[in-house]
This record gives sequence, structure tokens and C-alpha cells, in this order.
Amino acid sequence: MGKKNKQFVEKITAMEENFAQWYTDVVKQAELVDYGQVRGTMIIRPYGFAIWENIRDVLDEKFKETGHTNVAFPLFIPESLLQKEKDHVEGFAPEVAWVTHGGDEELAERLAVRPTSEVLFCDYYSKNIHSYRDLPKLYNQWGNVVRWEKTTRPFLRSSEFHWQEGHTAHATDEEASEETERMLGIYADVVEKYLAIPVLKGKKTDKEKFAGAKYTLTIESLMHDGKALQSGTSHHFGSGFAEAFDITYLDENGDSQYVHQTSWGLSTRIMGALIMVHGDNRGLVIPPRIAPTQAMIVPIAQHKEGVLDKAYDLRDQLKDIVRVDIDASDKMPGWKFNEYEMKGIPVRIEMGPKDIEKEQVVLVRRDTGEKEFVPLAALPTRLPALLDEVQANLYQRAEDHLHEKTNTATNMEEFATILEEQAGFIKAMWCGDVACEEKIKEATLATSRCIPFEQEKVADTCVCCGKEAKELVYWAKAY
Amino acid sequence: MGKKNKQFVEKITAMEENFAQWYTDVVKQAELVDYGQVRGTMIIRPYGFAIWENIRDVLDEKFKETGHTNVAFPLFIPESLLQKEKDHVEGFAPEVAWVTHGGDEELAERLAVRPTSEVLFCDYYSKNIHSYRDLPKLYNQWGNVVRWEKTTRPFLRSSEFHWQEGHTAHATDEEASEETERMLGIYADVVEKYLAIPVLKGKKTDKEKFAGAKYTLTIESLMHDGKALQSGTSHHFGSGFAEAFDITYLDENGDSQYVHQTSWGLSTRIMGALIMVHGDNRGLVIPPRIAPTQAMIVPIAQHKEGVLDKAYDLRDQLKDIVRVDIDASDKMPGWKFNEYEMKGIPVRIEMGPKDIEKEQVVLVRRDTGEKEFVPLAALPTRLPALLDEVQANLYQRAEDHLHEKTNTATNMEEFATILEEQAGFIKAMWCGDVACEEKIKEATLATSRCIPFEQEKVADTCVCCGKEAKELVYWAKAY
Repeated sequence: MGKKNKQFVEKITAMEENFAQWYTDVVKQAELVDYGQVRGTMIIRPYGFAIWENIRDVLDEKFKETGHTNVAFPLFIPESLLQKEKDHVEGFAPEVAWVTHGGDEELAERLAVRPTSEVLFCDYYSKNIHSYRDLPKLYNQWGNVVRWEKTTRPFLRSSEFHWQEGHTAHATDEEASEETERMLGIYADVVEKYLAIPVLKGKKTDKEKFAGAKYTLTIESLMHDGKALQSGTSHHFGSGFAEAFDITYLDENGDSQYVHQTSWGLSTRIMGALIMVHGDNRGLVIPPRIAPTQAMIVPIAQHKEGVLDKAYDLRDQLKDIVRVDIDASDKMPGWKFNEYEMKGIPVRIEMGPKDIEKEQVVLVRRDTGEKEFVPLAALPTRLPALLDEVQANLYQRAEDHLHEKTNTATNMEEFATILEEQAGFIKAMWCGDVACEEKIKEATLATSRCIPFEQEKVADTCVCCGKEAKELVYWAKAY
Repeated sequence: MGKKNKQFVEKITAMEENFAQWYTDVVKQAELVDYGQVRGTMIIRPYGFAIWENIRDVLDEKFKETGHTNVAFPLFIPESLLQKEKDHVEGFAPEVAWVTHGGDEELAERLAVRPTSEVLFCDYYSKNIHSYRDLPKLYNQWGNVVRWEKTTRPFLRSSEFHWQEGHTAHATDEEASEETERMLGIYADVVEKYLAIPVLKGKKTDKEKFAGAKYTLTIESLMHDGKALQSGTSHHFGSGFAEAFDITYLDENGDSQYVHQTSWGLSTRIMGALIMVHGDNRGLVIPPRIAPTQAMIVPIAQHKEGVLDKAYDLRDQLKDIVRVDIDASDKMPGWKFNEYEMKGIPVRIEMGPKDIEKEQVVLVRRDTGEKEFVPLAALPTRLPALLDEVQANLYQRAEDHLHEKTNTATNMEEFATILEEQAGFIKAMWCGDVACEEKIKEATLATSRCIPFEQEKVADTCVCCGKEAKELVYWAKAY
């Protein structure tokens, strides 16, 4: 066996033993990512990119259905332009990569490699929006951004990452609010229905909101180790950027008005959630709806006459029904089983001489490991149904885990105990004072994840200071 | 009328008067592009990006059908890595944008913003290819690259542009040759069949080949002003990069061998060809197969009862057959006609009260301006057929132009006369000496565009030096 196979024998670290190492092992051995030469950059390999493409295509379709169009804005931002909105530049300047030379020539002004593109869109909108007839502007961009991070991990925090960033401009604050909520709704919908990851929807506290936003909405998900991951955010800017960039329009009465803006983004970070929500000690588990290969045919005793022919026939028969592939390489079936389990392919189809004789195949689910014998004639209906069952089971399992690891604390002892014993989300009341938020973070490392849309009153007083509580907050340690 | 409409009254410069200004006017007024703040960068606006997306989707499908997978490699290249292949770095270093700082920290090594990604793929291949079983590697990447150009024009030459770059590694030189030709074939096919642009296929001279390549294949197209545009290139690297980066594999006998590589790219430059091959003095003309909107419904006298309802019904009836849209804004029909002619939408559908009465519509072709009355019942078959006719006519027109502007020269006087009188391609024999190539360029500004696959012997001697001719070359002034 060549070097390529060898890696599948090497066991990955058990997640109970060392979750961070398990993550790194899976990312590497499932061939999702390789490390780039520049610190904190990643190479997204074919399998990793194929998953991301599927997520992208689903989102892109929903963006277009809701009237958004794609555009491509430049990679570079002149330093003076980045500095136009005060809060925004403060938030991003420390992690900007700066271009200072073009060829041999030193540039008159440094250029930021975009960490996010608000200022570019604002500059464009200030020149291209004149009348209420020009509104709304509903733009989206798929691309790469750079943030010079100190500590990096593939997908979760990298110096360069891929994402989409939507940037919209509206006539009224209310329309911008609707857009902010609409896009968060799309994120929640795609993450839940396609990625099979249940999410909490809510609003960020002022401390945790996007630099320059009036408010930020978020979806938060829970990883297998009980830590939270911010999975998509949608920001309402009010007219803050419009005032800084002088983006005005003439309304129907001929009066000049500022526009109201939003931005929203979902990135390759979501790949990290996918791994840490569904994965297990045999590797990845990819939900069928976004799996590049939904079913992998592994011929058994393929040297025997007719086996490979039948396996290819099966592939041809299924290929318009599901995303199916076949591994007819000369590796041993056991090696193949390990490889496709590592890659999290939802269903394996085994077919050997005995199966051919009985006109059946063996289906093996990746999520539960259950096997079933299915007559060939029933396969075109049974296989899609099984994929639906796998999809539903993954969601259910993640939801059970989320509920199990969501607990209520009414004082800081309870808070600390829950965090220590099982991590997860902690529901606790908050007075609204940033001082309490900072104190909790300092004492426990947990941060406010969101002020959930579905409010409950689990106590009368703030979990931290004991003063009158204003609202319920979900807290957690987070990636 | 608001400011937005006004621009469509402003006439664009006639192409006969000033072709460069005509181009700039069209790019701007058809809302394809806006200028970025950083010199030579562009903002690709919704309409421009929608056309590019259609081209991208066609190519991407063909890449996948031929076994290629998409990946995402980093944006930054450490300076030392870029310097590993001598010819390559010499070709690209003068136009590299350099990152020198991350946040406040000065970097230990400068980072090039990728001008192209050969060295990144080579570095990856050197670590990930071990055995003949790992070959071929058939990777493609869609992304942005940066080249610090002195003189820039939207799409044609910009500091940052979008493209795809394929990078493959093969066991043998022959397989790499096949790949190089296969991908050029895909480019030619897509550009001819979808973009309706006839191309010349051939090989670049050594002087014009890609920095670091063994040879470069190219497709060349001819613009309306008689200048050529390189529209896609496919490079065979032999084992040059493999030797520089030590990319080896063990063959079936266990012997270590260098891999043989290719790369190939097609960029947003092709948008320039699209404009300059089909456009006219009323604006863009977009071939139906890549037009974001193939037919635009313009209601006539839409204030009259029933007109808008019928127009929407028509849209709904056609929307699964062609890419159709409707403009029900309160602009005058004449404004709308101008706008969609400027945007090059292949067919306009007019429908007013009289048409409704007669159960018909008026179809107006963008390419010829011809009108026809079509009964509503016949529209679902007539409209797609008409789009095919428009597509075919655009190709035919461009091919006629190409033939008309392709002439033979046997000496330098003829060469200069043709170039001065009508530009276009000049077929002339060449001795194979770079000195003649340089002399021709100096004397006429024309460059060798390609050594065509289809060779003819139009003379016995080199057009420049009069010595024995080696091969036929197509020459032209080029973008």
C-alpha cells in the first residue's frame, strides 16, 4: 500500500481525550485542508471546497430569490477610506495586512487588504445613489478577506478566509430592519435545514456587536465539546455609515435623506461547525443535503467476474437520483470503508458476488453504522429515503445535544459550576450593564452569545450583580 | 426624469470616431463597471457580474465534466517561494503588490499578493504527490489576482482581475500535452459557442509564452477595430517547475520521476472581447446564451387597463422557457428601449393594447433591429428559435469580420500597408528568429499572436529577413 493509504490506518485522537487534537486530525485526514506557507493561511483541498461550494450554492440561490445580485468589489482599500468611520476602523485596523509597494515603487498611500468591505460599498453607494428610485440596493459579494490574527486554526480563525458579504442600502430604518432579520432568517434556515445544525437566534450585546453597527443579529450553534460558535451575523447600521460617507437620496418630496444600511456575512467558519457538531471518532459526518458524494459504492471481491460491471451499472442507474460515486481502485474494501467513514460520506453501498446473486445491495449508514439489505429494484426509492432519515437524525441528535447542554443559572456559583461540569449554553438574566458582562468574562471566560429573540424570565435579578434584570442572555465559552 | 435615466439620453461616442472612448462609454453606461478608488481597480456592477457568472458557470461545468475539482489556495506568496523558479519570478516580480505589515508589526518576510498561483500549487504538489497513484492532479481555482500595471482599462488590463487558473500535474509529458490541448479546446469551444466569438488557435512564440512555460497555447480573437485580444491561454510546463520545486513521484517500478505540469487561465478580460466584438453604436450586444436577461418585456401604454396584467402573465408564461424580465417602471417606453439596447439584451418584447386585442406581441432583435409580430400562442416556440438565430447571426457576423480582416503579407511593405489600412490579422511567414519578431514589433507595433495549428505556406521566405521561412505566424496589434 502506498503512502496515501497509510494515513487511514493511523487512528485519529479520540475527541474525549483531546478535542482540539481530534479536530486537527479530522481536518487533515479527511483531506479538507492543508496549511499554507504564510502563517494562519489555509489551502482548501478538493473535498473541503466541494462541501463549501454546496453551502455556497444553496445560499446564493436564496439570496437571488430575495432580490440580491452579486458584484465584485476591489481587494484593496486606501488607508484614508478605511478611516472614515471611527468605530469601524478601530475595530479592524489592528488586524489589517498592509500593501506598501507596487513592483519597485513605494506607494504614496498604504492599502489595506480588505478585512471586510463596508467602506468600499459605502464609497460606491455615495456616488451611485441619488433618488428614492435607486433604492433599495441589494448587493452581495463572494470573496476572500484577510485578518491578521495572532492565533489561528483551520476554518475557525484563519488569516485569510472565504465568505459572502451582503451590503444593502434602504430608504428607511424599518426596511433596513426587515432586511437584517430576513438575512438572519436565511442563515438560520440554511444552517438548520441543509447543515442539520440547530441554532439559537438573537441579538448581540453592544459589547459584542460589529464595529460600526447599530446592532448585530446572530445565529449561534453548539459544538460537541460544549463550546459555542457564532455561525452567521447580520448587522443593522442605521445611518451611521451613511453620515460618515455622505450617502443621501432625494425622497419623493425632493428632500435629501440619509440611507439606512445593513451588512451580513457567513464564512468558511461554518465548516468548523459542521465538523464539530456532527463528527465522531471515526471522522467527519456530512449531512446528505450538502454532501458532495451522498453514497459511495464499494465493490466487494471486485476481482470476481461481473462484480465491477454490475457496480458500474448500479452507479449509472443511481446517478440521476443521488450524488453517487464508485471506488473501483485496487485498495482493500476495509481501507475504502475507513476512508469514506473518515470523509463522512452519508451512505456506503456494498455489492459483492453474493449480493449480485440475490439481486440486492448492503446499505451502511455513516451516522449510526446500521446496515440494511435492500433489493436492487427498491434502491431508487429506498436510497433517497434513507438519506432523508440520515439528515433528520443528524439534526435530531444535534438538537438533543443542544437541549441537554443548555442550563439555567441564577447566580455566579451555579454559573461557574455548570460551565465547569458540562459547559454548553447558560441561560442567565442580565442587568444590561457592560460591567457585568466584562466581569463574567473575566471570572469564567464565558461571553454573552446572544440576547435570544425568544425571551424568558428565569430570575428577577442579574446573575452577576443581583440588581434588577433587564433581559435573558445566553452565555458560553466560544470559538 | 431622475438622474438615472438621463444617462441614456447622452449619446455614446461613435466607435468610428474614437474606439477607445466608445469602449469606455459602453462599459460605464451599460453599468458593467465602475472605477475603484485604487488606481486600475474596478468594481464589477450587478449587470457585469451576472454576465461573468454565466461565463463562469459554463466553464466550471466543463472543467468538472473533464475531471477537474475546485480548490482555494492562499492569496499571499512568501517572497522566497516566488523566487524559486527563475524565469517565472523575472516575469512577474516587476508587477507584484507587496504586503509588508500585519497590523502594527513589520513582517519578517515580504508577501506577494498572488499575480498567479503556480508556485503555491507547486509547493503543495511537492508535499502531496508521492506515488503514480496520486496522479493526475487536476485542480482549478476561481479567484482574484493582482498585477501592478502602469496603464489600465476596465476588463482589458486592471490591477486586480478575476479569473480561473487551472493547475495540473501528470505522470508523463504526453499526458500534460493532452491536458494543455484539452483545456485550450474547452476555451475555444466556450468562447465560440457561448460568447459567439470566433477564435484562432495556435501556439505562442517563445518570446510571447508564459514566464516559466515550455510552451503556451492561445486562443486569439479580433476586435471591431482590427486589434487582437488574447482570450485564453494554456501552458505546458514540462518538468521545469517540478525540478525547481522537487515534485517527484514513484512510478510503478519504484523509480523516482519528476511530474509534468500545466496551467491554464481565462479571465474577466474576455468581457472586453465580448464588448468589442459584438457591440455597436447603441451599446452592448450580448449573445443570448450568456445573456442574464434574454428577453425584456416592455409594456406599451401600460396605464391602460389590463396591459400590465397581461404583461406579467406573459412573463410568467415565458419564465421557464427563456430568461425573461419585465420593466413595469413608470419610465417612458422610449427610455426603456434605449436602456435595454445599451445593455445589449438580445430581444425586446413589446406589448400594448392593440397587441393584446390581436393576441400578439412585437419582437425586436437587438442585433439587426428587425421587428416581427408573433401570435401569443406561437411565442413559446418562436422566442427560443429567434434567440438561436440571434446567437448564430452574431457568430456569423464576427466570423465574416475576422475573415475580412485577415490578410497575407510576403514582405514588410505589404505588412505595413495592411496594418495601416485595415489592421486585423496578418498572415506572414517567419524564420523562427526572435530578432525578426522584435524588429517587426519595433517597426509596426504588431506582435506575433500565434503560430496557428492550421499551417499554410504563404511564402518561402521570412517576411522580415527574407531568409528561409520556418512557419506561418499570425501577427496583429493587440490589446
